[in-house]
Amino acid sequence: MSGIWGQTIQLSLFGESHGPAVGVVIDGLPSGIALDQALIGAEMRRRAPGQSRLATQRKENDIPEILSGVYQGKTTGTPLCATIQNADTHSGDYEALWDIPRPGHADYPAFFRYGGFQDPRGGGHFSGRLTAPLVFAGAVAKQILAQKGVAIGARIQSIHTIQDAPLGQDMLTAERLQTWRQSAWPLIDRAKETEMRQCIQNAKEQQDSVGGVIQGIVLGAPLGLGDPFFDSVESVLSHFLFSVPAVKGVSFGGGFALSKRYGSECNDAYEMKGTEVTAKTNHNGGVLGGLTFGMPVVFSVAVKPTPSIKKEQQSVSLSKHTEAKLSVQGRHDPCIVPRALPVIEAVTALGMLDLMMRHTMRTGLGGRA
Amino acid sequence: MSGIWGQTIQLSLFGESHGPAVGVVIDGLPSGIALDQALIGAEMRRRAPGQSRLATQRKENDIPEILSGVYQGKTTGTPLCATIQNADTHSGDYEALWDIPRPGHADYPAFFRYGGFQDPRGGGHFSGRLTAPLVFAGAVAKQILAQKGVAIGARIQSIHTIQDAPLGQDMLTAERLQTWRQSAWPLIDRAKETEMRQCIQNAKEQQDSVGGVIQGIVLGAPLGLGDPFFDSVESVLSHFLFSVPAVKGVSFGGGFALSKRYGSECNDAYEMKGTEVTAKTNHNGGVLGGLTFGMPVVFSVAVKPTPSIKKEQQSVSLSKHTEAKLSVQGRHDPCIVPRALPVIEAVTALGMLDLMMRHTMRTGLGGRA
Amino acid sequence: MSGIWGQTIQLSLFGESHGPAVGVVIDGLPSGIALDQALIGAEMRRRAPGQSRLATQRKENDIPEILSGVYQGKTTGTPLCATIQNADTHSGDYEALWDIPRPGHADYPAFFRYGGFQDPRGGGHFSGRLTAPLVFAGAVAKQILAQKGVAIGARIQSIHTIQDAPLGQDMLTAERLQTWRQSAWPLIDRAKETEMRQCIQNAKEQQDSVGGVIQGIVLGAPLGLGDPFFDSVESVLSHFLFSVPAVKGVSFGGGFALSKRYGSECNDAYEMKGTEVTAKTNHNGGVLGGLTFGMPVVFSVAVKPTPSIKKEQQSVSLSKHTEAKLSVQGRHDPCIVPRALPVIEAVTALGMLDLMMRHTMRTGLGGRA
Amino acid sequence: MSGIWGQTIQLSLFGESHGPAVGVVIDGLPSGIALDQALIGAEMRRRAPGQSRLATQRKENDIPEILSGVYQGKTTGTPLCATIQNADTHSGDYEALWDIPRPGHADYPAFFRYGGFQDPRGGGHFSGRLTAPLVFAGAVAKQILAQKGVAIGARIQSIHTIQDAPLGQDMLTAERLQTWRQSAWPLIDRAKETEMRQCIQNAKEQQDSVGGVIQGIVLGAPLGLGDPFFDSVESVLSHFLFSVPAVKGVSFGGGFALSKRYGSECNDAYEMKGTEVTAKTNHNGGVLGGLTFGMPVVFSVAVKPTPSIKKEQQSVSLSKHTEAKLSVQGRHDPCIVPRALPVIEAVTALGMLDLMMRHTMRTGLGGRA
Repeated sequence: MSGIWGQTIQLSLFGESHGPAVGVVIDGLPSGIALDQALIGAEMRRRAPGQSRLATQRKENDIPEILSGVYQGKTTGTPLCATIQNADTHSGDYEALWDIPRPGHADYPAFFRYGGFQDPRGGGHFSGRLTAPLVFAGAVAKQILAQKGVAIGARIQSIHTIQDAPLGQDMLTAERLQTWRQSAWPLIDRAKETEMRQCIQNAKEQQDSVGGVIQGIVLGAPLGLGDPFFDSVESVLSHFLFSVPAVKGVSFGGGFALSKRYGSECNDAYEMKGTEVTAKTNHNGGVLGGLTFGMPVVFSVAVKPTPSIKKEQQSVSLSKHTEAKLSVQGRHDPCIVPRALPVIEAVTALGMLDLMMRHTMRTGLGGRA
Repeated sequence: MSGIWGQTIQLSLFGESHGPAVGVVIDGLPSGIALDQALIGAEMRRRAPGQSRLATQRKENDIPEILSGVYQGKTTGTPLCATIQNADTHSGDYEALWDIPRPGHADYPAFFRYGGFQDPRGGGHFSGRLTAPLVFAGAVAKQILAQKGVAIGARIQSIHTIQDAPLGQDMLTAERLQTWRQSAWPLIDRAKETEMRQCIQNAKEQQDSVGGVIQGIVLGAPLGLGDPFFDSVESVLSHFLFSVPAVKGVSFGGGFALSKRYGSECNDAYEMKGTEVTAKTNHNGGVLGGLTFGMPVVFSVAVKPTPSIKKEQQSVSLSKHTEAKLSVQGRHDPCIVPRALPVIEAVTALGMLDLMMRHTMRTGLGGRA
Repeated sequence: MSGIWGQTIQLSLFGESHGPAVGVVIDGLPSGIALDQALIGAEMRRRAPGQSRLATQRKENDIPEILSGVYQGKTTGTPLCATIQNADTHSGDYEALWDIPRPGHADYPAFFRYGGFQDPRGGGHFSGRLTAPLVFAGAVAKQILAQKGVAIGARIQSIHTIQDAPLGQDMLTAERLQTWRQSAWPLIDRAKETEMRQCIQNAKEQQDSVGGVIQGIVLGAPLGLGDPFFDSVESVLSHFLFSVPAVKGVSFGGGFALSKRYGSECNDAYEMKGTEVTAKTNHNGGVLGGLTFGMPVVFSVAVKPTPSIKKEQQSVSLSKHTEAKLSVQGRHDPCIVPRALPVIEAVTALGMLDLMMRHTMRTGLGGRA
Repeated sequence: MSGIWGQTIQLSLFGESHGPAVGVVIDGLPSGIALDQALIGAEMRRRAPGQSRLATQRKENDIPEILSGVYQGKTTGTPLCATIQNADTHSGDYEALWDIPRPGHADYPAFFRYGGFQDPRGGGHFSGRLTAPLVFAGAVAKQILAQKGVAIGARIQSIHTIQDAPLGQDMLTAERLQTWRQSAWPLIDRAKETEMRQCIQNAKEQQDSVGGVIQGIVLGAPLGLGDPFFDSVESVLSHFLFSVPAVKGVSFGGGFALSKRYGSECNDAYEMKGTEVTAKTNHNGGVLGGLTFGMPVVFSVAVKPTPSIKKEQQSVSLSKHTEAKLSVQGRHDPCIVPRALPVIEAVTALGMLDLMMRHTMRTGLGGRA
């Protein structure tokens, strides 16, 4: 069940990098949502390749073609299938991968997982290209969430060793998230952009790559969303976040740093703001006991450096059972973080929509005070 | 669906801290597994309260009573229900919580999530006591995995600012994991135990608490386990790990540190060991593209300090709409990390069993090379 | 996944006929539902054994013990586990079954399904006793549905060749369903009771058994419930109805008889009743295209004769590989239909609640006209 | 979750009758299956419109385009998406449906289910055209099952009041099923074809329609497939069979007729055939206690007459709140039974594959005798 996700909204993701198309079926959408094509287009462009000298030069229009579930511009409420054609494929680049697996990539385990029948061209189903339909689905989810007052955003927390400024509680406004979504370098300290670009440029020149940390934010989620244990907000979001290629860590609020503090430094004390209860701090990243507690949901995602590098690496020949040198050719991003931002936002939006729909179901059925 | 987990093995978790019992139904177990009562008992004792001056003084026998699914000491293959009685409950301790929510706990969001109908005694369904049936289920899973050559273990990576020695690749043997499981302080550098205990003791004396990091390890998993995207090994395990109360971060292999390195420093180069392919390093924690690649699965889990502290904290009275001071009474662990170890192992075992069963299904159906 | 059912409300069913207890976990219930113990008790008694000379003489109190999910008499919204003790077990009766499988029972395939590790006493997990927790869960579901104006009922449509009078459209009132629920012989033509009882008595005297048809009815379901294709109302209900032991057929509205009529005789013409649209007939049993269309949901369920009969039957000895004669001893119902009525109602109530919760989720999220 | 089905193999079905395409994603397929294009083509043609004067004159090539999951003619093991273009659409035919719902169709409840946003052209997502991708998916499933020795077939049991001859136990060979699949009129008594065609022709001339009963058969399923209760073979198959438009009844073995017999006439006595256990009869249709017991799985499916008829019917105008006459125009089948045969086979194959994969998982994991 590699490609089905969700309990209320369900995604079925499909496609290979060099096959005819990648795509997604979104099942369980409410009917009557007018699709905002401008928003969808903008999100697709944020992720699309060929936008920058610092990213892969593969050019794709990445315009989703909607096959079902939309009539006269609005969702019908039946399954929505969207496909994105694969046009600019250079399959020749990948032939050697068949035999000599790229370190840091799925090549080697995929060979065994699929018994050698997987499509090796461009990473096949493991390609980052599969995140294009995720971004499409996320754009649809963002629209529905926006109508409910829920906003999703993300910023670059760090690239390699270069840190953006820390997040202050007062910074978290829907306007700022909106500004971030419109920038390729969403940062608190805009001055860091030059430094970060230089860092990526250096890595590229050394035929190497760098990673970074993305911080995701959800504003406006209702109080009490989520469930204890298996469907905690953290469980649902981390499940989806770890589905994004290259993600190696997920933490909420203070995350790993909380493990080095005292309880009195981690508990978020409640106070009254007029007649409303609020918390003074948000060390817990908006989630307590698996449930939202009225503060923004804040989490960090560690993205490893792109494993595809020109620098020579050691690998093996699976056919010859010998060691072999490998220099990965083809068009690769020396840093995937900027293009990963809309993907992280997309899966967050989808996860939040799933949680919101379950919440609606519970509250709608009554029985509560 | 807060309490149902899994796709092949399914768990249904139930209970409240001060209700008659907590328990679990395990659905989908293979038949004919002779339950190793000694193993189950040992695992239950690792988690049980009242074992140490540094843990809560609540005393519970924590002996699972099996209501179904076992006949003549072996699993029947039908749903296995086990319950654990709640005996030593001091409900009086918790009465104030009704009105003044504990910072860092689920009290406040749970009140809204359940409309005021939740059982507030001892944290109700949000209690750490619910991890007892998880440990039981995990012990059953460990037995089945052991028969397949898969071993699960965990160590204390840090308590507060005190770090254990780093993990060397050569340390990862089934014997070491076994030794760790038999110790309340599974450490590489045994000398750290005194320091860690002192640190917890100090926190207790200050009416405060500390957290830590637990490192989980899986040895012997077959190559190519897992799926790309939504059911990556990282997604499945993190989903379950974030279900454990107090977990605020999960990372695989180098985790967040990978985001500060170059690609050439994160890729795990392949080499030949005799006729076998292996990797020289394990920066990716045993998982590439969502699949196991033949190396141990290694991950870290950040555990926040116990939120229940005697130290006075600021909260609010939900009935009076005023601010209020709170000093949490009752019997609490100043550090939950040692008792959380078997819980982390249990959910890891259950996650791995789920992944193994899907793998068995795929490979058993044939069609592969 | 034999024992987990549902998408919104989820059931986890467990237990063996002669084990300590049978039970169920209900996950996903709304909070704040005051459990109507009188209703639950009444439903349990309808199904309980030992009530009539025409049913098994096994005596069980069948009083559910609630282990979780209820506080101060109301649902908390967390998983509700209820167990029912097995008290009056005569395991000796069943020893021969180990070797000589009863025709018409699960004994033979279960032996292979579970590799010989199943609990053979009293049919083990295959026992009709497992329907006791279903009736409990159904009673909870009925309460929630009643608050939403949805009523569930069932009548005996036939016993062996004796037919009750046909159902007229005007008969379908909540009051009649209520009357039916209070009778052991819910019939339109009350005069048939004597005939039916005599028929069962005759079968008993011949050491044989009879079956019958149960008609189930749902009143008050909202218009447009359900989904096309995989979650049609018919799919959801039939899935659950075929879970009830001894059910061999399920049909909606005119059912198999529709296959012998013309289209013009099967289509339910619409008409105006004042300002409201309604249908003149209900040949489609309240469901069109998988969705409710405002008419009562009406379906029929074929129940085969109890397979446990004293009459000598031919079977085989699995150990000796020879043919063998078998006369089933023990306490068995010569006709299970009267006791199956509350079970059919229970699974219908649970299925309808699942459909209602999905409906609530969709309509609550907005986007519709 | 209208369009997602299955637990191991999962289908995601999408499309509208007059949208760009209908299609399906099949998730969880084993890798390395060489797709038999001849078989797929043959199955698609069995269902395709425009084949006979007795069926709709809509012409569609119905050639599936595979977008993913197949490489060099074999399944990769990643999600397989296939689409089928909608070419010959006459949307003008359907405009009146917007306002005057067709009796016996989903028009009226769908309007409320989707808030008026559904695609009304050609029945939209409720169209029988959605069964084309089901037949494609079923053809893939049949291939995999065939490799495991499992064969699926179906015959026309009756059209209107014309019955085919009864099924004898000795008739059930894989060869016969194969012959049936190659005929548009799979019958035991071939002489009935003329009579049945005449019956349909008569209905057509009267601007009316007729239905029938289809009998489905599964040969070669392993002993002990399925689960008690919620995933009984009967539950899994009926769930899927009731997803097929126009199905109003499903029964196994003797079905409703069993309710009129004695237990001694319904139990299938065991006997030895050489060293093998077998049953003398198959009144239970191959399923006992939810499990296969070594006999062919045999079931009957009631198909109602096509609701689209030219004959004038009474309906209402939803906009004017008045009664209105309706004569359904457009190209419709006077009897859908012959084209429904491959659809019934397809969903049976998919259901059996799902059950087989779970069986493989269980037996592969060991623990059994």
